[in-house]
Amino acid sequence: MADPSTSPPLTRASVAEARKLIEPFVHRTPVISSSSLSELASSPAPAIGEAGTGAEEKGKAKPKLRLWFKCENFQKVGAFKARGAFHAIERLKREPGWLEGGGRERGVVTHSSGNHAQALSLAARTNNIPAYIVMPSISAPPKIAATKGYGANVIFSGSTSVEREAVTAKVIEDTGARLVPPYDHPDIILGQGTLGLEFQEQVETLMAEKAEKGGEKPTKKKGLDAIIAPCGGGGMLSGVALSCEGTGIRVFGAEPSFQGADDAKRGFESGSRITSVKTLTIADGLRTPVGAIPWSVIYDRRLVSAFFSVSESQIKSAMRLAYERLKVVIEPSSAVPLAVALYDEAFRELVEREAGDEGWDVGIVFSGGNVGLDALGALFAEGKE
Amino acid sequence: MADPSTSPPLTRASVAEARKLIEPFVHRTPVISSSSLSELASSPAPAIGEAGTGAEEKGKAKPKLRLWFKCENFQKVGAFKARGAFHAIERLKREPGWLEGGGRERGVVTHSSGNHAQALSLAARTNNIPAYIVMPSISAPPKIAATKGYGANVIFSGSTSVEREAVTAKVIEDTGARLVPPYDHPDIILGQGTLGLEFQEQVETLMAEKAEKGGEKPTKKKGLDAIIAPCGGGGMLSGVALSCEGTGIRVFGAEPSFQGADDAKRGFESGSRITSVKTLTIADGLRTPVGAIPWSVIYDRRLVSAFFSVSESQIKSAMRLAYERLKVVIEPSSAVPLAVALYDEAFRELVEREAGDEGWDVGIVFSGGNVGLDALGALFAEGKE
Repeated sequence: MADPSTSPPLTRASVAEARKLIEPFVHRTPVISSSSLSELASSPAPAIGEAGTGAEEKGKAKPKLRLWFKCENFQKVGAFKARGAFHAIERLKREPGWLEGGGRERGVVTHSSGNHAQALSLAARTNNIPAYIVMPSISAPPKIAATKGYGANVIFSGSTSVEREAVTAKVIEDTGARLVPPYDHPDIILGQGTLGLEFQEQVETLMAEKAEKGGEKPTKKKGLDAIIAPCGGGGMLSGVALSCEGTGIRVFGAEPSFQGADDAKRGFESGSRITSVKTLTIADGLRTPVGAIPWSVIYDRRLVSAFFSVSESQIKSAMRLAYERLKVVIEPSSAVPLAVALYDEAFRELVEREAGDEGWDVGIVFSGGNVGLDALGALFAEGKE
Repeated sequence: MADPSTSPPLTRASVAEARKLIEPFVHRTPVISSSSLSELASSPAPAIGEAGTGAEEKGKAKPKLRLWFKCENFQKVGAFKARGAFHAIERLKREPGWLEGGGRERGVVTHSSGNHAQALSLAARTNNIPAYIVMPSISAPPKIAATKGYGANVIFSGSTSVEREAVTAKVIEDTGARLVPPYDHPDIILGQGTLGLEFQEQVETLMAEKAEKGGEKPTKKKGLDAIIAPCGGGGMLSGVALSCEGTGIRVFGAEPSFQGADDAKRGFESGSRITSVKTLTIADGLRTPVGAIPWSVIYDRRLVSAFFSVSESQIKSAMRLAYERLKVVIEPSSAVPLAVALYDEAFRELVEREAGDEGWDVGIVFSGGNVGLDALGALFAEGKE
């Protein structure tokens, strides 16, 4: 990873620069809408979930919501992580001395068993750079196979963070490879933020086309009123927040509530970042506590307006709707922002209050689609829900 | 349904006319490609399936295949059936005397428990016409709910075809509603065929864009070499075949082999249409024998080049790849053409022989995406496959 001190400032303009760098390598993923899901979101929320959680009662708020979905599940490697990884490599290539010092031969390293591992592997292979991926030896075999499939050198470690970091340090010592962390770095944040810029433009275009088709004259500038993005380590949420700075588009973070996975929400409300979380939420991409640099954007600069959290049942229910109505495959983490829009009474009251009769156009980030059919089968097999 | 004697002739030009009629009502669904699936299709087929079926051995053919997918799973009501239903209604509206004779008040009727029922219900509701749908009382509750959700009057019958037809006749007697059959009518065939025209244009555009991006000069006209479409009643396959007449694009039919579901293949090879099939293939949209009018296009006019059939395991394997690689939700029937491209040795040898080193661009029709997550869970729950 390029030295953070050489990174561009964390601004909307830097996100636009990042976009230019990665444009040749990543997909401009489609944005879709659904009148049936927008209708559903505009009706009182059904009761979903466990008794005693507050979610067992039918909602009262009746906000007017038009939903738009940014499909990063169709991104390379099946998740937005490709953006940050390609940006990290492009920035490394531009770091003074990196190439001359044999950087390309020494390669890059990370510890991850998820989408970041595959994203970094692909970005490295595309640039003919060796990638070393440190993974717990207990990782699911398909994830190991997928990462190897992108040409990475997979190195196993124990599953605690101390064990993983020790093995990573050893790899760096042995190879001179540069560490590319999954979220806590400006270059990663700026790379992920590029999806936010695309999202804004795409919705404006789609709305203009729709207005034209309906015979409306182009009047005031239209576009998104808000974006809800999932928050794990916070790299993507903070990048999206940067992409919206100065536009008036509000940015909200979405988390699972299970076993304290809503660390960013709790930290945001108490005023101090929570640095440790232990949760087995089905939204496995969101088990990580939010990182320090993302936090500086999210909280210190207040570029995120609020956080909302949803239950496991609500996540599953939203996931089911994405499959059955939108016909797209998303992983559980991706269903969290949709669950907020459909079921979170606090969010829905906020929209009802602030948007009034005109309603809001809300962008929902589908962050990824990497879920095996076996895992899906286990989640939704008859009677299990 | 408009009297077949008033229908336009079954030609490519009539498909283009149908397209103009339905364009305001249906989606121009996206076409996607996947380098990973094209690579897979261009490697020898893996052994998939039951011992003794011939599918347990690794394939030898190594055709060069570039796959393109027409995503009718994103169509209104989640399947291509919307095209035929909207076309049927538009044609009815233009039938001399229908409107004046109170046709709009009398409505339309069909017997179906699947995608056609929902498609006709939506097309009727859009036009403020009552729809009567005769369904076996044992139909799955979500299907009944979905059809009612589109505003149709659902009328229950026994589950044999004799019982269903008796109830349908009674509805016609009572209401004067016009019968709109699911596939055996020229207007339905022409409506479904519109997806073929779009597919051809979209692939040409995508190939031209790709060539331009890669710095190639536009040379010879490029486009699809072949289309593989699933065959149930044959309405869509025959429509797609019409859309390709005179273009040089070869059209192939794909069926499940389970319990004789490959009736069109057997009929095509023996020279006589098979009119009765009893199968419980997981590709439930393809359990129907091919209809007489589709057959006249498919066989008598030889607008379909050949049929191929695949096993249940091959269908499930193709379905898994669509989910895991393409991140799209398709129903089992939609996976049948992909299974042919990936696993059917006869098809693959044909391409290897005829396309040589240059290979073929093959269009795969994803016909629909209506599958419940419960059913999916049951299909793919761990250990079940």
